[in-house]
Amino acid sequence: MVSTENISCVLAFFFDVFPFCRNTGDDDVSIKVLYCGICHSDLHTIKNEWRNAIYPVVAGHEIAGVVTEVGKNVARFKAGDNVGVGCMVNTCRSCESCEEGSENYCSRIVFTYNSVDRDGTVTYGGYSELVVVSERFVVRFPDGLPLDRGAPLLCAGVTVYAPMKQHGLSEPGKHVGVIGLGGLGHVAVKFAKAFGMKVTVISTSPEKRQEAVERLGADAFVVSTNASDMKSVMGTMHGIINTACASTSMHPYFALLKPKGKMILVGLPEKPLQVSAFALVGGGKTLAGSCMGSITDTQEMMDFAAKHGVAADVELVRADEVNTAMERLAKGDVRYRFVIDIGNTLKTD
Amino acid sequence: MVSTENISCVLAFFFDVFPFCRNTGDDDVSIKVLYCGICHSDLHTIKNEWRNAIYPVVAGHEIAGVVTEVGKNVARFKAGDNVGVGCMVNTCRSCESCEEGSENYCSRIVFTYNSVDRDGTVTYGGYSELVVVSERFVVRFPDGLPLDRGAPLLCAGVTVYAPMKQHGLSEPGKHVGVIGLGGLGHVAVKFAKAFGMKVTVISTSPEKRQEAVERLGADAFVVSTNASDMKSVMGTMHGIINTACASTSMHPYFALLKPKGKMILVGLPEKPLQVSAFALVGGGKTLAGSCMGSITDTQEMMDFAAKHGVAADVELVRADEVNTAMERLAKGDVRYRFVIDIGNTLKTD
Repeated sequence: MVSTENISCVLAFFFDVFPFCRNTGDDDVSIKVLYCGICHSDLHTIKNEWRNAIYPVVAGHEIAGVVTEVGKNVARFKAGDNVGVGCMVNTCRSCESCEEGSENYCSRIVFTYNSVDRDGTVTYGGYSELVVVSERFVVRFPDGLPLDRGAPLLCAGVTVYAPMKQHGLSEPGKHVGVIGLGGLGHVAVKFAKAFGMKVTVISTSPEKRQEAVERLGADAFVVSTNASDMKSVMGTMHGIINTACASTSMHPYFALLKPKGKMILVGLPEKPLQVSAFALVGGGKTLAGSCMGSITDTQEMMDFAAKHGVAADVELVRADEVNTAMERLAKGDVRYRFVIDIGNTLKTD
Repeated sequence: MVSTENISCVLAFFFDVFPFCRNTGDDDVSIKVLYCGICHSDLHTIKNEWRNAIYPVVAGHEIAGVVTEVGKNVARFKAGDNVGVGCMVNTCRSCESCEEGSENYCSRIVFTYNSVDRDGTVTYGGYSELVVVSERFVVRFPDGLPLDRGAPLLCAGVTVYAPMKQHGLSEPGKHVGVIGLGGLGHVAVKFAKAFGMKVTVISTSPEKRQEAVERLGADAFVVSTNASDMKSVMGTMHGIINTACASTSMHPYFALLKPKGKMILVGLPEKPLQVSAFALVGGGKTLAGSCMGSITDTQEMMDFAAKHGVAADVELVRADEVNTAMERLAKGDVRYRFVIDIGNTLKTD
């Protein structure tokens, strides 16, 4: 097993030995990776914090690139097309979730990296020169959506977009709260504004107020530890997108919801959440989890983003700057997503 | 204040001094009470366990009776009609919840008893000879639905029916779990079967198996503390109606849900629920609370019950047996709802 004590060793190793790609199969699309976003789950996996790492790990599931070759059965893509790959590259294709188009909930999902595919091979992600992916799990990059700023939408974007659509939090005039202003939160604000909603950012960091309102266009900003801030928006929200991983007491947030309001959890606090039954039952309120989105959701989200000018705010880094980026990410020091400029900076032998 | 140490004193007091009814106003329906169900919340209130009792309390919000008189503006009812009154008798009539027909979530809801109405008077419930209620909060008792066995539907019935309809747990062929086989649970089983669903009862009491399957028609029965029972239904349910008040760890139950499955909480455990974010997010699952139902829901539920032969299993008690019934209810010794035969047994001066 590769040591995880020094992130540098692990990542240097990745770039030395990859790509480990398979050949282009009949149903496959080969993609030259141009950009790959850095998701916090990449860091969790590389450091084996979820105790499931299959070393060597090649992370990266926010992949933007250009098609170099397609298999003979591939109809939707051709060489030269701009495409994206998100969090998954295979599923069982026959279960109820797969058949109803919710393949992101297939129990045999194969993730883009650190996962065992149906043929027994381990999957490797987008911190690489090239990826080969089944056509079914590739989405088209619409014209007008920049590849660098669009890449993070393939994970962070669809993770907030899909539940907003599913739970009716995409209707003009409704009021949505966004807890946490990070990689997911900042695109949630952008999508909500593009839907025509009123958006309030709920944060523990008062210093983010200006950023939230002036740069991202939020209508309001409240500090979750400030009782008068919280009181000012009590009972006003149709829904809340909760991207925060630290807080486990849901009670103060439920009070912000209108009757029948919904809190959607897209972060993963490790400790159990504390939920008052009275808070849920009294107002007919909902706490729902959501994980990624389907391929259909992802394509719809990319098309919507292109049409409405939604993209992530990113810091582009060179391939040889990834370790520094990881160290900064571990401290939450990024606005709002690192994206590796692989096409221009990854040197391979 | 009336002593609550001895239930007998309190209840005897009720029957001696009531009705405290108002006269029939222009929009009112006066109702001779024939039957009134005993809900566990009646006991909580009488004993001031929720610390909100306004003594003297006249409990009862599962009221079945016959119209004796109507106000001049009343169009939907006339003397002689069989009608029902459930948990609420007024709301603000102008808030978002009221306007969208979810008046059960109006923040100024006036409950059928132990509540202060908009004119400042305290409301008194159905453990009485007569009630006077605004037409808007009266429902028609459809032909074919017996008044005694239909009375508990006005609270217990709509409390499970409304969220089943709202959350898509009323579709033929779907599989629903019902946690707890009491007043609410047993009607949840009956409605689910009437919807054409597969129903599994989840209980802590192995001795309820025969009752659940043979008498109530459940398709399966699992004991929640039996690991192999629970494993046998893992990942199979589209939804769960949770009527239990004791259990606070939701984790074992979430495992029974399919992806995107929903657990609907209609009971009120006093301690905070423990909810794993991983359990919710990983499968896109939902925990939703639900409280009663709207008047529209209630009428629809009563009509559905009449059409499909759904009614509560009740033990009829005489007015002078109420204290004994309350003592048995406190011990959970009832199958499944006590109903007071007020029309035939309440003696008033």
